[in-house]
Amino acid sequence: MNEKKYTSPLLLVGGGADSIDVQYAANFDAPDPFLFLGHKGERIVVVSSLELGRAQRVSPPLVPVSPEDLGLPKGKRRDLGQQAVALLRQRGLSAVGVSAVCPVGLVRRLESAGIKVTVRKDPVMPGRLCKAPAEIKALRKIQRTTAKAMRAAVDLIRSSDIGKDGRLMVRGEALTSERVRAEVELLLIRENARADEIIVAGGDQAVDPHERGTGVLYAHAPIVLDIFPRDRGSGYWGDMTRTVLRGKPSPAQRKLYRTVLDAQKQALALVAPGVTGKEIHQRVCDVFDAAGYETGLIDGVPQGFIHSTGHGLGLEIHENPSVSPAGGPLEPGQVITIEPGLYYRGIGGVRIEDAVVVTEKGSSILATCPKVFVP
Amino acid sequence: MNEKKYTSPLLLVGGGADSIDVQYAANFDAPDPFLFLGHKGERIVVVSSLELGRAQRVSPPLVPVSPEDLGLPKGKRRDLGQQAVALLRQRGLSAVGVSAVCPVGLVRRLESAGIKVTVRKDPVMPGRLCKAPAEIKALRKIQRTTAKAMRAAVDLIRSSDIGKDGRLMVRGEALTSERVRAEVELLLIRENARADEIIVAGGDQAVDPHERGTGVLYAHAPIVLDIFPRDRGSGYWGDMTRTVLRGKPSPAQRKLYRTVLDAQKQALALVAPGVTGKEIHQRVCDVFDAAGYETGLIDGVPQGFIHSTGHGLGLEIHENPSVSPAGGPLEPGQVITIEPGLYYRGIGGVRIEDAVVVTEKGSSILATCPKVFVP
Repeated sequence: MNEKKYTSPLLLVGGGADSIDVQYAANFDAPDPFLFLGHKGERIVVVSSLELGRAQRVSPPLVPVSPEDLGLPKGKRRDLGQQAVALLRQRGLSAVGVSAVCPVGLVRRLESAGIKVTVRKDPVMPGRLCKAPAEIKALRKIQRTTAKAMRAAVDLIRSSDIGKDGRLMVRGEALTSERVRAEVELLLIRENARADEIIVAGGDQAVDPHERGTGVLYAHAPIVLDIFPRDRGSGYWGDMTRTVLRGKPSPAQRKLYRTVLDAQKQALALVAPGVTGKEIHQRVCDVFDAAGYETGLIDGVPQGFIHSTGHGLGLEIHENPSVSPAGGPLEPGQVITIEPGLYYRGIGGVRIEDAVVVTEKGSSILATCPKVFVP
Repeated sequence: MNEKKYTSPLLLVGGGADSIDVQYAANFDAPDPFLFLGHKGERIVVVSSLELGRAQRVSPPLVPVSPEDLGLPKGKRRDLGQQAVALLRQRGLSAVGVSAVCPVGLVRRLESAGIKVTVRKDPVMPGRLCKAPAEIKALRKIQRTTAKAMRAAVDLIRSSDIGKDGRLMVRGEALTSERVRAEVELLLIRENARADEIIVAGGDQAVDPHERGTGVLYAHAPIVLDIFPRDRGSGYWGDMTRTVLRGKPSPAQRKLYRTVLDAQKQALALVAPGVTGKEIHQRVCDVFDAAGYETGLIDGVPQGFIHSTGHGLGLEIHENPSVSPAGGPLEPGQVITIEPGLYYRGIGGVRIEDAVVVTEKGSSILATCPKVFVP
């Protein structure tokens, strides 16, 4: 999972701006920002004595350097700018590359010390885009866990009774978004995964796709369940969405679900090397257009298909490639989500999402679970 | 909790480099990077239609601007650089301030559009350093939850039996770091808090202060419990450490614990306005010196008192002010941790931590729980 060669020196900020790229390149992370330098095949990290032990145990091995090794006086040892200047001088470097997200303060410090700084084009770790077999294995594992959590959430909703005023009830208590979320989180913790922002949003709440959902869940309205946990072992993310309804859907709700499911199936079938994210996104738009669904501000609220079709999945929950109007041609080994959705006030929101790896000939779902609107 | 006035325009990256400052200034966060501009008392955020609904509901009100409002063509709407140039031009601004952690790519984009960029000195939100009453209330709340979680962890260890080979056993199963961590995390989830990296480290594992701990816990060795959860409602962090031992401590372990406890008590008693973090840290060093404890590389491993005495606590787990050789004078309203520790292979690690708010005359513990070495 590592980029082992650096044609020219590259300076990144681990535990900060470049955290994920450094995790990828160094198999190492720390809670506070630290410097990473890739240079002549060496992977150097500048870490305090606090992190030295952990850094020494990383495989493949890093070159841990402490602020003391750099000859920095007490009181200046924690300053990343001082550390960077000292490290580059020690290695005889008068020029270095950084990422576009490198802190401007660090760049100005280097420049004022006479070091030439080149901002590298994204991605600085191009190897991250196409996943190696070990990475795909890690992604399949966390996605299997995600599917397990999804089944638990759906089971809980299915097991509910419909109380007065249409509230969902479990063992005499109203079923809330918070309750479903807690059920999912407890399961994920047992699986060594973490999820901070699970979405359990019913009715009009789901029309705002980033609203996590709060309060009592009701019958006869779609409930969007979007679960995206990170494996605490590997660091890779899973991502899956299902939409379910307890009770009786209206014809408008049924049509909404059917259309999104159709769009997702068509988009999934399109995924293959050489096909662009733009083409896949356009197919979803075409399915929605053909069914008569419009997108735009309705009563001042964005409604319709108001997000992109998907995104890359890896050490970040949202990474390249994009499955959107800006999406380029796909390549084998890329892992993307396909998650069309439609959102209208008074009807509700429907989103259905799976993650796939692009294969030589098409794609393969990482892991899945049933898609049933009324479970 | 907001800085409502901006004497000159300040551009920050929310959901990214300046995430915490934007949370503080705007009461708003999003999973992907977005622009924040503080200008003439207005707090402007550039958010996609996906986040517009949530941004419109923030109180006190923000000025949400969409990429469409900025006249950006499709395909360029997601580019923060394009957004920033368009936003500043729309507002008639030819100069702007940024933070030292602003992505260099964004700065270069602004400069190439002829906009003068000034890197502001830290902190860009100086109001964050001294907490307002509502913030202290939020910090006390999460620290009470932290104390509750700590009591549960200590209770679990106390309830264990000592099995063969000195393993701690609970109901016939070996008690592991993972098991204690799960117990704490489940409790925290029920309290709407999250903790990703709780430390439960026994014996020599604890000698590496950032090692989270793994595997079976043993009797007759100190176990460091460091719990730092974030309140998912308020966003504020708690932080507390206790060290416990099940079984019989050796004289060396007893002395280690007594010395750390003494240092912590003396440091806590020193906290008051005008006293510097440096002075408090020095007091801890003096207590350790007087007891004959040395710090440095021993057998190539950093041992002794190998971290600073404490740090600021707020919307970040580690923030200013520092209680270290670099620490300046304290002010009322600042919230800091006091967490001296000593770590020696063969004896183990001991760290004891509480968080206090600096008051007009001294300090006040946010919340606490007993400090008992052999519970």
